[in-house]
Amino acid sequence: MLGRLSVTPTDDDLTAPPATSWVVEADRRVRYDVTVSRDIFALDNHSLMQAGTTASATTRRRFVVIDQTVHRLYGDLFDKYLRHHGIMAQLCVLDATEQEKSMESVAHIVRGLDEFGIDRRREPIIGIGGGVLLDIVGVASSLYRRHTPYVRVPTTLIGLVDAGVGVKTGVNFNGHKNRLGTYEAPAATLLDRNFLTTLDRRHLSNGLAEILKIALIKDRALFDQLETYGRVLLDERLQGTTPVNEIAAREVLRRAVHGMLEELQPNLWETKLERLVDYGHSFSPAIEMAALPDLLHGEAVTIDMALTTLIAHGRGLVGDTDRDRVLAVMNLLELPTHHRGCTPELLAKALADTTRHRDGLQRLPLPVGIGDAVFVNDVTDDELRRAADAIAVAAGATTGSPR
Amino acid sequence: MLGRLSVTPTDDDLTAPPATSWVVEADRRVRYDVTVSRDIFALDNHSLMQAGTTASATTRRRFVVIDQTVHRLYGDLFDKYLRHHGIMAQLCVLDATEQEKSMESVAHIVRGLDEFGIDRRREPIIGIGGGVLLDIVGVASSLYRRHTPYVRVPTTLIGLVDAGVGVKTGVNFNGHKNRLGTYEAPAATLLDRNFLTTLDRRHLSNGLAEILKIALIKDRALFDQLETYGRVLLDERLQGTTPVNEIAAREVLRRAVHGMLEELQPNLWETKLERLVDYGHSFSPAIEMAALPDLLHGEAVTIDMALTTLIAHGRGLVGDTDRDRVLAVMNLLELPTHHRGCTPELLAKALADTTRHRDGLQRLPLPVGIGDAVFVNDVTDDELRRAADAIAVAAGATTGSPR
Ligand SMILES: NC(=O)c1ccc[n+]([C@@H]2O[C@H](COP(=O)([O-])OP(=O)(O)OC[C@H]3O[C@@H](n4cnc5c(N)ncnc54)[C@H](O)[C@@H]3O)[C@@H](O)[C@H]2O)c1
Ligand SMILES: NC(=O)c1ccc[n+]([C@@H]2O[C@H](COP(=O)([O-])OP(=O)(O)OC[C@H]3O[C@@H](n4cnc5c(N)ncnc54)[C@H](O)[C@@H]3O)[C@@H](O)[C@H]2O)c1
Repeated sequence: MLGRLSVTPTDDDLTAPPATSWVVEADRRVRYDVTVSRDIFALDNHSLMQAGTTASATTRRRFVVIDQTVHRLYGDLFDKYLRHHGIMAQLCVLDATEQEKSMESVAHIVRGLDEFGIDRRREPIIGIGGGVLLDIVGVASSLYRRHTPYVRVPTTLIGLVDAGVGVKTGVNFNGHKNRLGTYEAPAATLLDRNFLTTLDRRHLSNGLAEILKIALIKDRALFDQLETYGRVLLDERLQGTTPVNEIAAREVLRRAVHGMLEELQPNLWETKLERLVDYGHSFSPAIEMAALPDLLHGEAVTIDMALTTLIAHGRGLVGDTDRDRVLAVMNLLELPTHHRGCTPELLAKALADTTRHRDGLQRLPLPVGIGDAVFVNDVTDDELRRAADAIAVAAGATTGSPR
Repeated sequence: MLGRLSVTPTDDDLTAPPATSWVVEADRRVRYDVTVSRDIFALDNHSLMQAGTTASATTRRRFVVIDQTVHRLYGDLFDKYLRHHGIMAQLCVLDATEQEKSMESVAHIVRGLDEFGIDRRREPIIGIGGGVLLDIVGVASSLYRRHTPYVRVPTTLIGLVDAGVGVKTGVNFNGHKNRLGTYEAPAATLLDRNFLTTLDRRHLSNGLAEILKIALIKDRALFDQLETYGRVLLDERLQGTTPVNEIAAREVLRRAVHGMLEELQPNLWETKLERLVDYGHSFSPAIEMAALPDLLHGEAVTIDMALTTLIAHGRGLVGDTDRDRVLAVMNLLELPTHHRGCTPELLAKALADTTRHRDGLQRLPLPVGIGDAVFVNDVTDDELRRAADAIAVAAGATTGSPR
């Protein structure tokens, strides 16, 4: 344990002034594993039972929170797995939608934990589901007895490359997204892309948007792979039916997670406000809100990325060829690049809101070519308008496309 | 930022096995000030407005959560202070009782924060009240946008020496005390014993119990001061009406806070299960519960300390004189040493519960003389029974004293 306790005046101070003051300092070490696994419900796969425990500190009991849809699809398989390993599991099946992403769902989990009588040191909570479920379980785990370890098993592509790998938790409150939450690392995360076999195509595209984000800001090779294999990844749900496609699926996932973790690790608590992973997240909150319920999160993020690509193009940071390649990959991944709700007024207001959240500076990540980025603070309303016009034209919005 | 990101296999690994694994490590630095101040509402005292901010990051707005009783007693004074300093404050007056120590109260605060539109980087939340209020505000601050800094202003003696100085927050849930909470350091704590002028005598005694705890386990000089000045501290509500009494009041508070912080700082997140500050907290949860609503927390703690003093006496760790001095100081501070609910069965069950919470070992702090302690793991039911009998006799319980 690093840190120290210092006091003013010191004990040797004979002329003690009326005020005494202590400074308490300590470092909290956070450590967690993110592990790629396949077939985590295969009977000979022990990773789920071992995750977040050691041989000396484990029991054959688990409290599992699972998304309702995932339970419908994988419940039988999971049940067999548990019976094979002799695990006494209490399942808490959650209707994990944005509407139910609330403190009430957290309370429901907590009541289950009380009833189960969890042994916090030997029985990590297991959360299985998409970003919504993982975020809710994260809040419950953070709060239960001031922290109870939990294992994340993401079952969506957003979960695999984003919600599952960082330390953020959250629930919606008072009409605001993720208004309540914590930074609380999981004990471990297990990434199994088998779950994607049942995910619908639009949610796959949605997850590919966050992968594309990583590619655009920092990984040109990842972009190349998306360009070459994007359509097959989508068609095959990242399952790799040939050796070449398998390597592509594995590599795309690996690079996306690696790139994300490289950005998150030095700034786990978001104390630094210049975050590359905020790319695509400057205008998208307002766009998502204005378009409700038209757009999924990753779709709004893509619209933001298309817009900012054009801003960067206007500044000479992205050339014609790169701009066209970027927009083409967005199309390839079946992601929208424009929404008719994106008026110049909305975009200006969105930037103002984002600037306020980033403590008075835009800190706007803009792409430089493909695979690199800079932060700028001086985007004007006029630039925004020009980029919005250009993207509307490029996206064929003038011909009346709905999104 | 310390920590690192490591990955298996490494990028140079040519024969990549199917599994990839990352270890994410980082250290979160926690730092907060605990400062003794007097008259924090005096017009020329700037500590409240400066707490938790810097000159460059502050505004003239504050969101204040205040205990209803404290508001009734100090509201006018506080109002004058705010007006004098030109502060636009939004007050959230809470009926901060154990019954209302709930997630509903947290939600109430959060709605207030939304309405106020707090600027998290410049406007720390201010919490003014006893341990109940501070614990609730702590939970709200932990969760609001994944952490919003808060300043603690304790107004009870428990708050000044215990709830106000550590990092624990909590609310009751599902019939369990502090079932939900976090470890979240305040930005700063201001200790002003002026508030004690209005605190009732029983709550003063209650706070003195936690001070006595620190004395018994690690500070014999503090014990001596309690023995000499205990009654006058109680009578004068630690206000020091003479220079000698003033020094005594100041020193007793300073030593208590210092001793507490010395124990907390190296173990802020309670990863180490042998905690000296758990002294008096092994049997007291069960005692408090069984005696409901007879005993305040510090009273139950004192009954636990009297019992364990007699266990230690039975083992020859505490001599006759020290035992008598300890029990005499408990009486002097108007604290009970026995409750008729303390049956041998209850005590045996309490120890079993505590052992379970301490991961299978008793880890029971026992006093050694006055001002020192050891941890033991082998207290027997028989020892418990003998100590309970002895304390009942010493406390005159056989003559029918109600507590
Ligand atoms: N904590 C973070 O760092 C972080 C990061 C990104 C997103 N998020 C959060 O994640 C949420 C979005 O996550 P999401 O996109 O995974 O949405 P989601 O959790 O709502 O899942 C999408 C849909 O897919 C279903 N589903 C899940 N797994 C399935 C499977 N294997 N097969 C078939 N259907 C399946 C779900 O029931 C749901 O209907 C948002 O609330 C967002 O705030 C959090
Ligand atoms: N977080 C921690 O580390 C920690 C440590 C110890 C106790 N606690 C918690 O603190 C709570 C007990 O705190 P407490 O003993 O301060 O009780 P409390 O907050 O209930 O206050 C006791 C009573 O005194 C009143 N009061 C407060 N300030 C006053 C003043 N200046 N003048 C007159 N009346 C005043 C309150 O309204 C209340 O009726 C428990 O819930 C316990 O769990 C937390």
